[in-house]
Amino acid sequence: MNNLKVYNTLNSKKEKFVPITKGKVGMYVCGPTVYSNVHLGNCRTFISFDLIYRYLTHLGYKVRYVRNITDVGHLENDEDEGEDRIAKKARLENLEPMEIVQRYTLDFHNALSKFNTLPPSIEPTATGHIVEQIELIKKMIKTGMGYEMNGSVYFDVHKFNTSNNYGKLSGRKLEDLIHNSRSLDGQSDKKNPQDFALWKKAELQHIMKWNSPWSEGFPGWHLECTAMSTKYLGESFDIHGGGLDLKFPHHECEIAQAEAVNKKTPVKYWLHTNMMTLDGKKMAKSTGNNILPSDVFSGINNKFTKPFSPSVVKFFFLQAHYRSILDISEVALSASEKGYNKLIEAIKTLNSIPTSGENTEFDLNKWKEACYSAMDDDFNSPILIANLFEAVKFINKLNSEGDTLSEDQKQTLSNQLNIFVFEILGLKTSNETIKSNNQSNTLEQTIKILIKLRNSARINKNFKTADLIRDELNSIGIDLKDDKTSSSFSINKK
Amino acid sequence: MNNLKVYNTLNSKKEKFVPITKGKVGMYVCGPTVYSNVHLGNCRTFISFDLIYRYLTHLGYKVRYVRNITDVGHLENDEDEGEDRIAKKARLENLEPMEIVQRYTLDFHNALSKFNTLPPSIEPTATGHIVEQIELIKKMIKTGMGYEMNGSVYFDVHKFNTSNNYGKLSGRKLEDLIHNSRSLDGQSDKKNPQDFALWKKAELQHIMKWNSPWSEGFPGWHLECTAMSTKYLGESFDIHGGGLDLKFPHHECEIAQAEAVNKKTPVKYWLHTNMMTLDGKKMAKSTGNNILPSDVFSGINNKFTKPFSPSVVKFFFLQAHYRSILDISEVALSASEKGYNKLIEAIKTLNSIPTSGENTEFDLNKWKEACYSAMDDDFNSPILIANLFEAVKFINKLNSEGDTLSEDQKQTLSNQLNIFVFEILGLKTSNETIKSNNQSNTLEQTIKILIKLRNSARINKNFKTADLIRDELNSIGIDLKDDKTSSSFSINKK
Repeated sequence: MNNLKVYNTLNSKKEKFVPITKGKVGMYVCGPTVYSNVHLGNCRTFISFDLIYRYLTHLGYKVRYVRNITDVGHLENDEDEGEDRIAKKARLENLEPMEIVQRYTLDFHNALSKFNTLPPSIEPTATGHIVEQIELIKKMIKTGMGYEMNGSVYFDVHKFNTSNNYGKLSGRKLEDLIHNSRSLDGQSDKKNPQDFALWKKAELQHIMKWNSPWSEGFPGWHLECTAMSTKYLGESFDIHGGGLDLKFPHHECEIAQAEAVNKKTPVKYWLHTNMMTLDGKKMAKSTGNNILPSDVFSGINNKFTKPFSPSVVKFFFLQAHYRSILDISEVALSASEKGYNKLIEAIKTLNSIPTSGENTEFDLNKWKEACYSAMDDDFNSPILIANLFEAVKFINKLNSEGDTLSEDQKQTLSNQLNIFVFEILGLKTSNETIKSNNQSNTLEQTIKILIKLRNSARINKNFKTADLIRDELNSIGIDLKDDKTSSSFSINKK
Repeated sequence: MNNLKVYNTLNSKKEKFVPITKGKVGMYVCGPTVYSNVHLGNCRTFISFDLIYRYLTHLGYKVRYVRNITDVGHLENDEDEGEDRIAKKARLENLEPMEIVQRYTLDFHNALSKFNTLPPSIEPTATGHIVEQIELIKKMIKTGMGYEMNGSVYFDVHKFNTSNNYGKLSGRKLEDLIHNSRSLDGQSDKKNPQDFALWKKAELQHIMKWNSPWSEGFPGWHLECTAMSTKYLGESFDIHGGGLDLKFPHHECEIAQAEAVNKKTPVKYWLHTNMMTLDGKKMAKSTGNNILPSDVFSGINNKFTKPFSPSVVKFFFLQAHYRSILDISEVALSASEKGYNKLIEAIKTLNSIPTSGENTEFDLNKWKEACYSAMDDDFNSPILIANLFEAVKFINKLNSEGDTLSEDQKQTLSNQLNIFVFEILGLKTSNETIKSNNQSNTLEQTIKILIKLRNSARINKNFKTADLIRDELNSIGIDLKDDKTSSSFSINKK
């Protein structure tokens, strides 16, 4: 069906992609914890998996793409200590936690929709799967991999490691983890510091809690993804994705949980996206080296001097491979903006290239193959884009030299460009924008006819007509600025 | 704080609105069952509650607006028989039920966002509250209002009615209900036909099921709203809304459940929106007398000959009171379109009215009061709109007669119009639309200058120039059609 190879973090190798069930792909991607506005680095991750989803779909797979929303249980320090992130934000903003969830889920959806990503097939929430998580804990207690202590339940990493290999994804060894851990301070209910929470008993004042066989409490952060991926994709599925920062402990713990319950490998291919830096430094809210998508789009921020559209930012992301660190800066975005505009312009230009006989200068088949090879090589969008610019160069040459190509070649090139640019990369030139651009173009051309008439009038010393045209245009908000032989114009924005 | 009166379905009276907690309002509205595309009648309901939410917020209340998504447990015949609507659709479309939920939740959000409604504060799902529903059932069994039978649990309506009044919302009497019921056929686990399911044991092949103390099964449809409204708004809250068709049995059963558990009146004000008809007949998918929002917007449908924008449809809805039956037809929509355009035009025209001394013709304070009185009278948007047209008449008169008003009057009128039209009615003139319209207007005006020049040329027998203008316009896709003295034009759509 395909020549796709994907880089599997589980063994750090590129492997031929062979789904578990022929023709179908199950893909789970860790979604956001909705306690603050989504940041650009998150967007990059979800845009990367959007590319992967689009390409798999393009190859003909029926993809069930599950991306969750974490709306409870993600504690502040990513381990089992600190306040629940959502509950904390709710306390600070004096809102019900679910109002926080709603606010930032909307922000997340809004940002991703601006980036023209496709919605996942299912978007389950952690609070929507409390029963499923409780059932998993019961099973882990039954097999001895989970133990209860004072109303909380923990996963016994040491015991798991005697029969399974804890650390297989992240490459960490339990003995090293033990060596590097501080000893428990006697306050903890855990047997060992490496153990992690499956269920946490809630403090009295805690709002987000549910009844369970062990206590009123809430699930541990790692558990939700095991519950939801298993429920919607089965005990073994094809692709699990997420940001590289989730590899340990989150994904490592997911593997342990799933293996403890189902006694089989849960995921065939682990895909991880790399991080983004801003002006060469790690993006972090705490240091202020951070920027929100909306601030990039509006241009109102203290990092960049001008706005960049969602399409340009997306194009910039796609010009790097998803496994590379990407540094965002004004210089880099501006370069992408030029590239993006050049690409879109060339697609439009192609429409007006006249056709006649076959053009032998450009090997269309070879070009198409190179494009697919790039995507087949672990979704290598930068190489795809480099190939697209070969086509751009060809189109611009045809245009400037008045060359032609055959109707068939034109059709093929146009179709493939549309597939790569709009369907697979998922770039957008919305109808609204196209319509608006068409209107702008027609307006511009109409004004130019008037300027041409006026130039003739000026040459013929018919100043009455020349002035009439200038005044009439002026009365509808269009100002002419004359130089010696012609005029430029500006349209007043109301 | 206000003079608001609302019509309370519970006693069929208009009552002064006094919230339970000063300055705050808790409002719960029954949302959609997401197993098919949202229909226009549903949209009308949610637009009505959007108006109510907007007005309460405008009055200064801090409103917590909860609108749920029913994603399980709503059986086909609205009672306790038949297949789960979502599971059935999943079976027909060969999808996982949660894929159905995702597809139609997106459709619902998309339609409401086109209508420019505000998102609710919290949008909880039935599957997200299984634990809470199980806890409620336990309590009802404890108080003897719920009884288990073969793994299912039912609410004992007869027992409830001995201590409480079943039927207080719908005005039905239990003895009449008994009289009109068919007797149980021996297949049912219910003690009486009036009892309703709290928990249904699932058949083996049933996908949507959860573990519970009674069986693997799923909650009854009425239970979710009691669980979610109580969780997010408390045991007693201010407003419960929904379509009139939900009054019985759904809302009646909600009252029974809440009273059985909490021993207090759950809802202070019940608000119900009336139904919509299409060309005088009940809208129903089965008869084909039905139309989807997207089909109205695109104009591609077998009911109307032209498209209507979301703003026009919304304006049409708001021209009727939410408690009136509303018939939708092309004639009525076209009338609304004219009215809507006239209103928006007048708001624009007001900007260009020159100011000087006070204008005594129009009593602004009285007008403003009349507008607020309308809204205070159970959110009477048609009367508000009638008042807005008084202002439109005044503005158009000022404009046509070259009259003026004081700077202060102009500012007040403009502010209030903006508040009523955009903030409270929630109509939208998007920037995109305005920009696009401005461009169209400028283009039109520019073409008219060329036509004027060409007319002069024709009169002066300068056919060379006349032809040049026609040909140049033609080359950019604008065709002129001449009559004796002037020309009309058309722009070719590409």
